[in-house]
Amino acid sequence: MAKALERSIRERVPTLLTDLYQFTMAYAYWRSGRHNEPAVFELFFRDNPFGGGFSLFSGMHDCLLFLRSFRFTDEDVEYLRSVLPPATDPAFFLFLRELDCSGVTLHSVPEGTVVFARVPLMEVSGPLAVVQLLETSLLCLVNYASLVCSNAARFRLAAGSRRKLLEMGLRRAQGPDGGLTASRYTYVGGFDMTSNVQAGFLFGIPVAGTMAHSYVTSFSSLEEVWPQTLVAANGDHDNIDLISLTKGWLGRVCELLGAESGKIHEGELAAFLSYAIAYPHNFLPVIDSYSVTCSGLLNFCAVALSLFELDYSPLGVRLDSGDLCRQSVEVRHVFRLCSEQFSIPAFQSLLIVGTNNISEYSMAELNKKENEIDVVGVGTHLVTCTRQPSLGCVYKLVEVRGSPRMKFSEDPEKSTVPGRKAVYRMLDTEGHPFLDLLCLCEEPAPKACVAVRCHPVVGNKTCQSITPSQVSCLRLEVYTKGQITQPLCSTAETREKVQSSIQTLHPRHKRLQEPDSYIVAVSEKLRNLIAEIRKGSSNNSNFLLAN
Amino acid sequence: MAKALERSIRERVPTLLTDLYQFTMAYAYWRSGRHNEPAVFELFFRDNPFGGGFSLFSGMHDCLLFLRSFRFTDEDVEYLRSVLPPATDPAFFLFLRELDCSGVTLHSVPEGTVVFARVPLMEVSGPLAVVQLLETSLLCLVNYASLVCSNAARFRLAAGSRRKLLEMGLRRAQGPDGGLTASRYTYVGGFDMTSNVQAGFLFGIPVAGTMAHSYVTSFSSLEEVWPQTLVAANGDHDNIDLISLTKGWLGRVCELLGAESGKIHEGELAAFLSYAIAYPHNFLPVIDSYSVTCSGLLNFCAVALSLFELDYSPLGVRLDSGDLCRQSVEVRHVFRLCSEQFSIPAFQSLLIVGTNNISEYSMAELNKKENEIDVVGVGTHLVTCTRQPSLGCVYKLVEVRGSPRMKFSEDPEKSTVPGRKAVYRMLDTEGHPFLDLLCLCEEPAPKACVAVRCHPVVGNKTCQSITPSQVSCLRLEVYTKGQITQPLCSTAETREKVQSSIQTLHPRHKRLQEPDSYIVAVSEKLRNLIAEIRKGSSNNSNFLLAN
Repeated sequence: MAKALERSIRERVPTLLTDLYQFTMAYAYWRSGRHNEPAVFELFFRDNPFGGGFSLFSGMHDCLLFLRSFRFTDEDVEYLRSVLPPATDPAFFLFLRELDCSGVTLHSVPEGTVVFARVPLMEVSGPLAVVQLLETSLLCLVNYASLVCSNAARFRLAAGSRRKLLEMGLRRAQGPDGGLTASRYTYVGGFDMTSNVQAGFLFGIPVAGTMAHSYVTSFSSLEEVWPQTLVAANGDHDNIDLISLTKGWLGRVCELLGAESGKIHEGELAAFLSYAIAYPHNFLPVIDSYSVTCSGLLNFCAVALSLFELDYSPLGVRLDSGDLCRQSVEVRHVFRLCSEQFSIPAFQSLLIVGTNNISEYSMAELNKKENEIDVVGVGTHLVTCTRQPSLGCVYKLVEVRGSPRMKFSEDPEKSTVPGRKAVYRMLDTEGHPFLDLLCLCEEPAPKACVAVRCHPVVGNKTCQSITPSQVSCLRLEVYTKGQITQPLCSTAETREKVQSSIQTLHPRHKRLQEPDSYIVAVSEKLRNLIAEIRKGSSNNSNFLLAN
Repeated sequence: MAKALERSIRERVPTLLTDLYQFTMAYAYWRSGRHNEPAVFELFFRDNPFGGGFSLFSGMHDCLLFLRSFRFTDEDVEYLRSVLPPATDPAFFLFLRELDCSGVTLHSVPEGTVVFARVPLMEVSGPLAVVQLLETSLLCLVNYASLVCSNAARFRLAAGSRRKLLEMGLRRAQGPDGGLTASRYTYVGGFDMTSNVQAGFLFGIPVAGTMAHSYVTSFSSLEEVWPQTLVAANGDHDNIDLISLTKGWLGRVCELLGAESGKIHEGELAAFLSYAIAYPHNFLPVIDSYSVTCSGLLNFCAVALSLFELDYSPLGVRLDSGDLCRQSVEVRHVFRLCSEQFSIPAFQSLLIVGTNNISEYSMAELNKKENEIDVVGVGTHLVTCTRQPSLGCVYKLVEVRGSPRMKFSEDPEKSTVPGRKAVYRMLDTEGHPFLDLLCLCEEPAPKACVAVRCHPVVGNKTCQSITPSQVSCLRLEVYTKGQITQPLCSTAETREKVQSSIQTLHPRHKRLQEPDSYIVAVSEKLRNLIAEIRKGSSNNSNFLLAN
C-alpha cells in the first residue's frame, strides 16, 4: 500500500493547497534576494487538547511524503500568475517552477509519541522562501491527525483495555478525506477496528460491521427469506429448513421468558434469518429496529439457537438506541437464561455491541454503571472531536541566518520562544517523564543524575533545579537533502508506539479529568536569550537617527 | 475546472470509502435474490444545526459526480474478497465488479436551498443492493458540506452585509480535503474570499492574503531591505529611495501622534518596506508582531504615506491579536489624523482587517461594540463548526417493492416517516415560506389559496388547516439512467442561490438566537399511513401460527 499512499499524497495535498499569503511572502523574499537565507521554523501547539494533560503527535508520515513530492506544475504556476498581483516579476514564476524540498531538513519528535503543549513537534529548516511555503500544508497534516489520535487515546483510556473499540465516523467527518484520516489515526490512538473499508484497504486496519436498520426494515414477511435452508456446519449435508427450526425455537424462547408473541416483528425475523443464511458464521444483527425486548432480542435468540443447533457460532447483537447500559444488562440476563435452559454455555458470552452517540463522557460512565457491553462503536464525537474540534498547532519562525527570532504579539501567550533548539525529556526513577526541557541546540545535553536549572515556559513559576534519572532526546532527523532518513512506520507500528508511549506516563498526567500539568521548561541559556531579545526590542530605534 | 473535479471525485471518494456493513448487507440481499428489488431511501437530518431555525443543503454536486463514476475496480473487489467472510459466494464478487448506478434515480432539493429538520433532502431510488451501498458516501458528501455552508451563512448574517468575510481555516480543518470542502462551502454560504489557493484554482473563489508574522519577524534591520528604491506610480521614472522617504514620514507621524520613537521596531519597518517595494499596489501588513500602537501602526503609516506620495494606494492593515474592536477604533483614529494632517482623504478609509479566533458570537458582538473593522478573517470556528461539529444527516429506507417501510427504534425521535413522498413548501402572502409539507407522492399537489390539513412531524401539535398563498415543489429529478439531468451549477451560482433562498426566509426563522421553529408537517394521508403501520406492527405475529 506504500505506493498507493505516495501516489495519493499529490492528489490529497496538491502544492497549491496552501494560503495565498505564503506566495506573496515568498515573492517579497525572492524580490529582496532573501529567499535562500537559511531559516528555521517550529511547529507546536499552545494547549493540551480536551482539558487533558497530554497529546499525541501524528501526521509526520504524510508530511514526509508531502516534502518528497513537493513541486509546482505548469498549471499551478499559471494559476498563481493569474491571482498574484500584476506587479509580480515573471522571473518569480520560473523560480517557483524549479522549487523542491531538496534544501529542507526536518527534525521531528517520533510519530506516535506523547507530547505536551509548547514543545516543538517539528523543526523545519532550509531556504526561507521554501520553508515558509510549507507552513499551511504541514499544519493541515499534523493538526487533525494529532487531535483525533489524542481523542482516540482518551476514549481508549476511558474504555479500559478490556473493551473493544470500533470507529464508525466516516459519514460525520469533514468530507471523504476527513473520514479517512479519522479512521487511520483513531486506530493509531488505540481503537481496534474501523467500519471504513478504504481505511482497511490503505492502512491494513481491521474492518468490521454487519447490518443497518434499513436491512431489517427492508423485510416484511418470512416469504422474503430465500433460500430457506442451511446446511449444518458439522459436515452433515442435509438441507435444514431454518424457518421451521427457528419458529420452534422462538416458541420456546417466548415460553422461557414469558414473552408475548403478539409483538414480535415478522419482517425482523425474516431479516435475521436471511442474514444468518448468508453469513451463518458471522451473525450479529442490530436488534432495536422495533423493540429490543418485545421483538429484536426474541428473534435473535431464536435464530442464534437454530445456528447453535446446526453447529454454527453466532457472534452477538448490536444495540443502537435507548439506554445501552440498562438494555445490555437485560440482554445478558436473557443470554444467561438461554444458556442454562438450553445447555449452550457459549450463549451467555455472546457479544453485545453498543453504538448510540457515544462520547468520552458516556464511555467513562460505562465503567461506573452496571452494563454488559463488550464492544463500543463510536462515530460523531470521536471523529469531530466535539469537545475541542481543533488542536491549534502553529508554525513559527525561530531563526534566520543563524540569528534567533521572536514574536511578541498583543496577547502574551502568543509570544514565541526564539532560537534553534534541542528538546530533552527528563524521566524520574520509575521511568515516568516529568519535564521536557528546551535548550539552545549548541548547549551540551543534560545528563542523567546531574542537576540542571530550568524555567517553566508557562506561568510565573520560578527557576527550579531538577535531577533526571534518565534523559531522552526528543528529536530525530527524518528528512534531509530530498531523502526520508528514517524507516517509515506502518499504521500498526505507530499504534504500538502510541500505546507504549502512553504507558510511560505517570497516572497523574494521564488522568482524563484535572490532570497535574506536565512541566515544559527552558534552559538557563534560552531564558537569557529571551530576556536579551525583549530588552533589545524595547531599545531599538537608533535607525531613525542614521541615514 | 469541471474536468478536474470529475477526475478528482474518484480519488477523493473511492468506491471502497464506505462502511463494511454496506457490503455484508448487499451480499445478504444478493444471496436471497432481493438485490434488484426497487427500493427508496431518503436522506435528512433531525435537528437544525447551531440551535438555529434553518440549514442549507449542499454537497449534491459531488454526489452526482460520485454516482456517475461509481464502479468497483478489480483491486477493490480483491480487497473485499479478503475481508468479507469466507462463506461469501464467489459469484457475488462478479456481481460487484459489474455494478454501476445506471439503475439509480436521484431526486433532490436544489443545492443551495434553505432546508429544515426532517425534510428529505434527497430521495435515492433504485435496486436495493445498490442504493444501500451508496449510503455512507452520500452522507459523507452532504453532511459536512451542508453543515459548514450553514455555519458560514450564520456568520454572514451575524456580520451583516457590509463587512467582507475571508475564510482562512485550511490549517485547522480535518486534513486537506476537509479544508478544501470548507473553503468551497463557506464561500457558497456567503463568505467573500478564501486564503486557500487550491480552492481558488478549483472553484474560482477569490483568494486573498498578504503576510504572516513570520515575514515580519524574519527582518531585523533596514539593511535587509533590497532593492531600496521604488519608481512612482505616476509614470515618473526616477528611482526614489523609499527608506529615506519613509524615515522622514515616520518622524512626522511620531510628531503628530506624540509617539516615542524608542519603541519602534526596525525589523518591522524593514519588513513593511520590503513588502511595499515588492507589492506597492497591495500593501496590507499585519501590524501586531510587536506592539500595534508603539510600533506596527507607526511603521505602517510611514510606509503608507510614502506610497501615497508616490501615487500608490496602500490597502490597509491586519490586526491578529488582542482586543480587535478597541484597536480598530484606535487605528481608525490615527488614520483620520493622518488623513487630515497630510491632506490625503483616502487615508481615513484604509481597510482594517481583523483575524483573531473569531466565533459567531464574537462576530455578532462586532455589531454591538464600537469598532472599525472592514474585513473579518475566520478560521477555526468556521471550518470546525465548534458549536456543533456534525449535522447528523441520516439515510433511511422508506419503501421496498412499492411497500412503505418504517423504523420505530427505542428512541421515538429516531423513528422514520415511511413511504415515497413529495415535498412542498408553503409560502405566505409576502412570499415567506412558513411550512414544508410531506405528502405521499401519489397525492395531488396542494394548491395556492386552497386550504390543506396537515400534522406537524415534531411535537404534539394537533392537526391544523393552512392556506398557502403559493406552493413550490421542493424536489427535482437530478440523476437517472446514468445521466445527470440538470445543469450543474458553478460554485458562484450556488452561492447566489443560497443568498436568495435565505432572503425569502421570514426574520423570525432567520434569527440566529431563539428563532421561531419552522413547521414541517405530514399530510392527512401520510399520517394515516404511519398510524396504520404502527397498528400493523403491534399485531404482527400470525406468522408463528402458520407453517
